[in-house]
Amino acid sequence: MSEADLLETECEAVIESLCKIAGAANTLTEPSDMAAYLEDWTGQYHGEAIAVVRPASTHEVSEIVKLCAAKDIAIVPQGGRTGLCGGGVPVQGRHSVVVSLSRLNAIRSLDVAGRTFVVEAGAVLEVLQEEAAKNGLVFPLTFGAKGSCTIGGNLSTNAGGSNVVRYGNTRELCIGIEAVLPDGSIINALTGLRKDNTGYDIRHLLIGAEGTLGIITAAVFKLFPKPTSRATGFLAVSSLDAAIGVLNRIQDRTGGAVEAFEYMPQPAVDVICRVFPDIRPPLEGNVETGIMLEVASSRPSDAAEMEDGSIKFQNELMEIMGELMEDGLIIDAMVAQSEQQRGELWRLRESILEAITKAGPVYHLDISLPLANIAPFVEEMDREALRLGFRPLTVGHLGDGNLHYALACTDAERWAELPLEEVKSFAFSLLKRFNGSFSAEHGIGQSKLALMGTLKEPSQLAMMQVLKSAIDPKNIMNPGKMVVV
Amino acid sequence: MSEADLLETECEAVIESLCKIAGAANTLTEPSDMAAYLEDWTGQYHGEAIAVVRPASTHEVSEIVKLCAAKDIAIVPQGGRTGLCGGGVPVQGRHSVVVSLSRLNAIRSLDVAGRTFVVEAGAVLEVLQEEAAKNGLVFPLTFGAKGSCTIGGNLSTNAGGSNVVRYGNTRELCIGIEAVLPDGSIINALTGLRKDNTGYDIRHLLIGAEGTLGIITAAVFKLFPKPTSRATGFLAVSSLDAAIGVLNRIQDRTGGAVEAFEYMPQPAVDVICRVFPDIRPPLEGNVETGIMLEVASSRPSDAAEMEDGSIKFQNELMEIMGELMEDGLIIDAMVAQSEQQRGELWRLRESILEAITKAGPVYHLDISLPLANIAPFVEEMDREALRLGFRPLTVGHLGDGNLHYALACTDAERWAELPLEEVKSFAFSLLKRFNGSFSAEHGIGQSKLALMGTLKEPSQLAMMQVLKSAIDPKNIMNPGKMVVV
Repeated sequence: MSEADLLETECEAVIESLCKIAGAANTLTEPSDMAAYLEDWTGQYHGEAIAVVRPASTHEVSEIVKLCAAKDIAIVPQGGRTGLCGGGVPVQGRHSVVVSLSRLNAIRSLDVAGRTFVVEAGAVLEVLQEEAAKNGLVFPLTFGAKGSCTIGGNLSTNAGGSNVVRYGNTRELCIGIEAVLPDGSIINALTGLRKDNTGYDIRHLLIGAEGTLGIITAAVFKLFPKPTSRATGFLAVSSLDAAIGVLNRIQDRTGGAVEAFEYMPQPAVDVICRVFPDIRPPLEGNVETGIMLEVASSRPSDAAEMEDGSIKFQNELMEIMGELMEDGLIIDAMVAQSEQQRGELWRLRESILEAITKAGPVYHLDISLPLANIAPFVEEMDREALRLGFRPLTVGHLGDGNLHYALACTDAERWAELPLEEVKSFAFSLLKRFNGSFSAEHGIGQSKLALMGTLKEPSQLAMMQVLKSAIDPKNIMNPGKMVVV
Repeated sequence: MSEADLLETECEAVIESLCKIAGAANTLTEPSDMAAYLEDWTGQYHGEAIAVVRPASTHEVSEIVKLCAAKDIAIVPQGGRTGLCGGGVPVQGRHSVVVSLSRLNAIRSLDVAGRTFVVEAGAVLEVLQEEAAKNGLVFPLTFGAKGSCTIGGNLSTNAGGSNVVRYGNTRELCIGIEAVLPDGSIINALTGLRKDNTGYDIRHLLIGAEGTLGIITAAVFKLFPKPTSRATGFLAVSSLDAAIGVLNRIQDRTGGAVEAFEYMPQPAVDVICRVFPDIRPPLEGNVETGIMLEVASSRPSDAAEMEDGSIKFQNELMEIMGELMEDGLIIDAMVAQSEQQRGELWRLRESILEAITKAGPVYHLDISLPLANIAPFVEEMDREALRLGFRPLTVGHLGDGNLHYALACTDAERWAELPLEEVKSFAFSLLKRFNGSFSAEHGIGQSKLALMGTLKEPSQLAMMQVLKSAIDPKNIMNPGKMVVV
């Protein structure tokens, strides 16, 4: 037999074994069946695979990993394929099996008194939010992709979102995991203890590792009290630096109740209102530093209805804004007076990515900075972007120092001529100078792998390679993502 | 030369090199100078060392590590020696150098607007609390040893304490570290970003690793708004299960303001009041399930003084207690009406360890359980402890499921005859059955190393060994602690 024939025979044997483990109906090999699993939401990444397998239990995942380890076949763990960095699609040059966790999607248990639930990796985020709500609690992780992303993918990318300022990233919400390691062994750490100092923290090592160190199959998460009153508003702040002061003041005055503190300057609002003509700017005039704010409270005293029909918590926010105005920190402000007005503010915020994308060609930076460095970074970056012919469109989760900085184009036809590499290179140097991160919440995957080599501290990069080689010596777990060994 | 002579010559060469790095005044070799560094607070552990060295910079730490790595000498990183598991004392059988971080104790910077500070490992916890307070903020980590423990030790043991229920363990407060790895390379991850998804989480791997994977030399921590009103009380709850419901209700009603929720049943209160006759029980009668509670708020509206001179937040807590009493969840309650009364409640809580220790021989279990399993565990454990002749004295941070369960003795003279191994073995089996942890917040060190072999899941233990061998292939970083390779 030729080498090619030998490979084909080997692949067939692997497929046969996969069928035995997960069932033939859940072992896809036809190109048309596999197509959807071999590309992601961005449309930028396409891969090839021997098979796509959909295990229904942790035991099946373990058996699949053992099989692939024995045959030196790459494993690509896959959630909802909503990642933005190509982390869930196979790379070229390796025989790969895509392991879709979609059938491993049960909510195993929910402890109302202990305020935790144990969920499987393939559960869709929105389903988890709904289950928590049914039990009078909140699972606060949320972002645009919630209807299709899975919690396993959220864990593997340590997903963020708009209320990290109050509840933290996915990492901070998770208090236990179950996972299959590259040798097929299973780690069962689902006790959900708030305190447990018995050894190295393996959970945090697997969270955010993009499936390169093992496959997270289930996790325990904290649940939170359901807010009974909310106040949502839009502020025109006097400067980006003043915005940090405003955030701190509102945090102090509300007892840390800020759930969203979203930077929405005028250029971003303009693009949204142009692309979606039914959306109107929340404040009149040119709002250079616009902030969409939401505070929420579970205290019944905050939900009290006042004599004039207003809600106490909303009144308190208005009072705070009055003070901030007197102090010159904010110039103008509005507080939503109805659920409809609140919905309009959220629609404004949530339309931004679609609006920017529809408005023309664009390159997105997902970056973070120490709060004190945001203003000088934006100033220098805007100046250089404009000089090079780009239109900077910045929005961001300001409370976490996370900016989504879009390099758009004032004239779509000129896009190809614009010096994209030059402006990116400028951005990354500037970020380094200001102690920023070149990937705040989207991760590394394939798209930012090269940047790791140039921007990550060499000692940390070396440590990552030591960890990857030790835990996955055959380099079978999602190779070509996050770290090169 | 004989082997012993050779060793002695080598040791002398090492000492000479240490003197060059850190200065002769900071390289202790006389037994009388070293004595204090070779034992810890418990008095149970004593070690030997070639030298105790006190570097003053991260660079010096790195040079010391490189030297020891080249000579295959064990390094024992040391903070305030207040650990309870022997993690900071050298073990027998290895030539060791103790690296005391005591001189590396600067507060490098404090960012009032960004609410973070960068501190060095040797800084004493209480000094950090005071520095935060001077800046109008709170560094919430706190426990009895705060006056002498160092933040590096707190990080390495992932220390807990009484307000974890609100702020988390040391791990959750830390948003960046600087560390020296076993090859002497330095990791500088002190940007303090709230979001940074660029690679594996090395920070969480080093936190809680008890110095076995590297030496943390500095860290960035979150700071919090200073509460402007507090309400502190003592509750007689109808059962341990009811206590969880009480905690949840108070959390919801106060918007998550619970800072302490400490389990203090009657037997513990009795011991305290017997050992310290000036301390009086906060409630009359037999309080089977006593809870010391504190809530705190930074909201000015909560600090408002009412017409009768009381504080609004305290009134609200009284109202909540009234409701909980009507619902049968609590039987009796008091709320401190003055700072003095508050101080008395805290003195009661903080006297417990000393009281139990003074009252006679005792063995301490530092354990945690899922909240739902606390009541059945305590019931079974108490029964068996009593049957075997022990007096169970339990207190704990109930909000985190963390119990300090003391096996004391009703008759001190009989202690040596009591079946301590039998009751411990029963406790650990029972913990396993109830998904508990045998070390909630004190760590492993030397004292619980053997338990790791019998109680830790084999796959997790294997993973720990893989990590230790990969990161510290020569096993020079604090050998004989936490993990055996």
